[in-house]
Amino acid sequence: MTYVRNCWYVACWSADITEKPFAAHILSERIVLYRAPSGALVALEDRCVHRNAPLSVGRCEGANIRCLYHGLLFDADGRCIEIPGQDLIPEKARIRKYPVADKHDWIWVWMGDPAKAEENLIPPVAGLQHPEWLLGHGHIDIAGEARLMCDNLLDFTHLSYVHAAGFAASDAWARSRPKFTQLPNGVRSERWVVGDKGMRTREDAAPIDGWQSYDLLLPGILIMWNGFYEAGTAAKMNMGAPDPALTSFDVSLTCQAITPLKEKQTRYFWTWGPRKGPADEAVLAALMSIADEAFGEDRAIVEAQQRVLDDRPDAPIMPTNSDQGVLMYNRFVAELVRDEQSGSASPIRATA
Amino acid sequence: MTYVRNCWYVACWSADITEKPFAAHILSERIVLYRAPSGALVALEDRCVHRNAPLSVGRCEGANIRCLYHGLLFDADGRCIEIPGQDLIPEKARIRKYPVADKHDWIWVWMGDPAKAEENLIPPVAGLQHPEWLLGHGHIDIAGEARLMCDNLLDFTHLSYVHAAGFAASDAWARSRPKFTQLPNGVRSERWVVGDKGMRTREDAAPIDGWQSYDLLLPGILIMWNGFYEAGTAAKMNMGAPDPALTSFDVSLTCQAITPLKEKQTRYFWTWGPRKGPADEAVLAALMSIADEAFGEDRAIVEAQQRVLDDRPDAPIMPTNSDQGVLMYNRFVAELVRDEQSGSASPIRATA
Amino acid sequence: MTYVRNCWYVACWSADITEKPFAAHILSERIVLYRAPSGALVALEDRCVHRNAPLSVGRCEGANIRCLYHGLLFDADGRCIEIPGQDLIPEKARIRKYPVADKHDWIWVWMGDPAKAEENLIPPVAGLQHPEWLLGHGHIDIAGEARLMCDNLLDFTHLSYVHAAGFAASDAWARSRPKFTQLPNGVRSERWVVGDKGMRTREDAAPIDGWQSYDLLLPGILIMWNGFYEAGTAAKMNMGAPDPALTSFDVSLTCQAITPLKEKQTRYFWTWGPRKGPADEAVLAALMSIADEAFGEDRAIVEAQQRVLDDRPDAPIMPTNSDQGVLMYNRFVAELVRDEQSGSASPIRATA
Repeated sequence: MTYVRNCWYVACWSADITEKPFAAHILSERIVLYRAPSGALVALEDRCVHRNAPLSVGRCEGANIRCLYHGLLFDADGRCIEIPGQDLIPEKARIRKYPVADKHDWIWVWMGDPAKAEENLIPPVAGLQHPEWLLGHGHIDIAGEARLMCDNLLDFTHLSYVHAAGFAASDAWARSRPKFTQLPNGVRSERWVVGDKGMRTREDAAPIDGWQSYDLLLPGILIMWNGFYEAGTAAKMNMGAPDPALTSFDVSLTCQAITPLKEKQTRYFWTWGPRKGPADEAVLAALMSIADEAFGEDRAIVEAQQRVLDDRPDAPIMPTNSDQGVLMYNRFVAELVRDEQSGSASPIRATA
Repeated sequence: MTYVRNCWYVACWSADITEKPFAAHILSERIVLYRAPSGALVALEDRCVHRNAPLSVGRCEGANIRCLYHGLLFDADGRCIEIPGQDLIPEKARIRKYPVADKHDWIWVWMGDPAKAEENLIPPVAGLQHPEWLLGHGHIDIAGEARLMCDNLLDFTHLSYVHAAGFAASDAWARSRPKFTQLPNGVRSERWVVGDKGMRTREDAAPIDGWQSYDLLLPGILIMWNGFYEAGTAAKMNMGAPDPALTSFDVSLTCQAITPLKEKQTRYFWTWGPRKGPADEAVLAALMSIADEAFGEDRAIVEAQQRVLDDRPDAPIMPTNSDQGVLMYNRFVAELVRDEQSGSASPIRATA
Repeated sequence: MTYVRNCWYVACWSADITEKPFAAHILSERIVLYRAPSGALVALEDRCVHRNAPLSVGRCEGANIRCLYHGLLFDADGRCIEIPGQDLIPEKARIRKYPVADKHDWIWVWMGDPAKAEENLIPPVAGLQHPEWLLGHGHIDIAGEARLMCDNLLDFTHLSYVHAAGFAASDAWARSRPKFTQLPNGVRSERWVVGDKGMRTREDAAPIDGWQSYDLLLPGILIMWNGFYEAGTAAKMNMGAPDPALTSFDVSLTCQAITPLKEKQTRYFWTWGPRKGPADEAVLAALMSIADEAFGEDRAIVEAQQRVLDDRPDAPIMPTNSDQGVLMYNRFVAELVRDEQSGSASPIRATA
């Protein structure tokens, strides 16, 4: 697995973390998470120094966590502070502590150099209680490599084929190309899909113009805005971003996080929902139904792709015109990984 | 896996192939099969050149097949003929096309050099509508290496032990030895089993003489004829093949195909049935019941053998007198594989 | 797996072995066990010399066993004595014979040099019909390396944490340290736990003194004696072994055997019960209920530990004061293994 380490990975939902240990896997590392009575988050290597029992089957005691094999107690910094029946505690009796943050209803863990962990590098996703958006949420596990899901999100040609049912996406998505822009911490995609059918739930057959803009940010965080406008709007805007003052319908925001649990095991978190308004609960229910179907379609194709790669790990790929975003993002990741591994990593900036 | 490539492998039953994609594995290669509206069979590498999604989860469009990840379209020759949103199609955008034939109710795929694929090399098995034989059929999957099933079919000593129940085979099968003859594309076994009990369904205790003749042809195709005659017939024939004019009873024909799907995964196809006659439906029903039991017995012993080999891949073998056919066939296969791999392969001829 | 070979491993319960073949795994070797009509035990390599079918799916014929693939017959010494349809039997047609013994209701198999197998090296465990003890029994399979279970039994600090529920063990077990003594074939642990709560079933809250003495003998045989005495007894004995004449209550004996089936697969056999007396059946029932819960707790922690090691096979350990027995036993095992592998092995003596 080749992933950037100096960035924030989504471990779970904020609500998952209580004063009981929670076991997470990120980049094949075992991490135990819990909340101290003060509310402070703790993220530690999930491995007792004594005989490698996982602390996540242990017990929180205040801000500390006790291994329930032979009773060693660790503080929130990962230092062993008690060995039953032993007075002296060796200096080396400590486990790795991970920078961790609770923001926007996700728990974020920094997998790289702790000195570089800054909370303002957490992507500006919308939390579940966002004043502007009414968001539903979910997550699914995918038996495939996380980078395949990033590729999936960077080439929306697949909407017309993978999601012909789930999103009722027309061929327009495959024929049109978004404009990709390199960001300091990812890539941005913007486009009009002219003469689209709109959301699956729309009954009117008259074509409309759809505006879609998303950022895919390290290490696999999607923030995407979709809005539909009356036909002709794209041209009126000279194919540029729609004027915020324009009347739009079926506007939605989705934030998604792709977390590599282990090799070929990915957890895919998502929120999605309409702008708050009069009919929003019914719209949200419709979107959630679409989401269940569509994320299942993504999982099916990515897992099928993974099985082919399992049989032929060296199978070549042949990029097409639709891979502009995939290539831009993957080149960016490859450079960062190379820099990190050579020790010349420069800090990644938050999106301006 | 060491198997001859320049021969026809059974992929599935003819009826399995429709205008929807069918996924097959042969020799660890993924193959997608479908029928064009013209009825023509298509067998292609089951892998899109773009990002390795399997075409078998795609969609047939006339004689073509579309990848349902990003929409690339391939023709029946494996050439990519459409990339959504892209005008130029690179010459290298093509996948492997396999020679394929629909014959005798089986779909045959040629895994070697396409230039050497000739339909007359397909073994002369009997199809389900054969005028002379009333054939039932089935297939089972075996969690074992395909060559172990070939070995099984080449040493019928096992009838007395593995099939003491299923075929009610007597010790006579273990004590007698068939005559093996090398064929241009396999080996032939012929023998009388003198003083046999006959089929399991036979109630008469008086011994009879059984004649069994089979060819095991590349890459694991069995064509076997069994007939029982009144006691003394073997001697009357000087142990040679029975005179076709002789009255026989319980005559049956079975055709079988052993296909290596992947390493240690084998699909075993079979047809079996009596010569058409007055009581044939009842006889067929009895044979099908025997078949279910007996092929299950073969699977059990071969899977048990495979588990021992999994634990000790280097375990030696010790051939016995009963291995004459096994040795003849495996030596033949080893020579062909060596020739194929060295590039000096000479074409295999059909049985005269 | 690094285990001593020149010792007796428990394969199964005596009652498991009949005149039908029984398949066992020890140290990743396949062994077939059966009883000859004379009652004599037979333990052979579970692999036919012909084509590696397992003999355990074969058939016992008197003191012999027949492979039910092609009918080879082996005698109780592992010599092939019949090959159907073949007169000459090669000298090399033999399989390994293991020394085997039926003692104290366990079947013991010697995995090392047969010349060194002496029955008096079988540890003096108590059989199910022991005159002094009323013993229940059971076994469980653990998806973990056998040495992890030996480590578990050599550091009873874990009682206070793993078995806080199952045994209701107090912190006293973690705070006190037993005295370990090297034995010719293992290690001995002895200790008083002063001011203990006693068995889980005890209702009286007044503290009592517990005496625990156990031997862990090669290759993972535990013989453990637990007894509780009125408070003050430990001091009265100057922390030495209790006077047998003293009145004790809740006395129990447990014998346990840890058998490495395969890498990361362990079978854990145990007997446990009270000294025979008036109320013993009720006490035994209570102990069996505790046993089910407690052995499940051991399995859970050892399997969790194994999963961490699977992810990080090179993870360091950090011994503590509580590891005295673990280190003593493992050093002893490592020396024996080194001697065995260098060919300089001296015989292991039975416990004096």
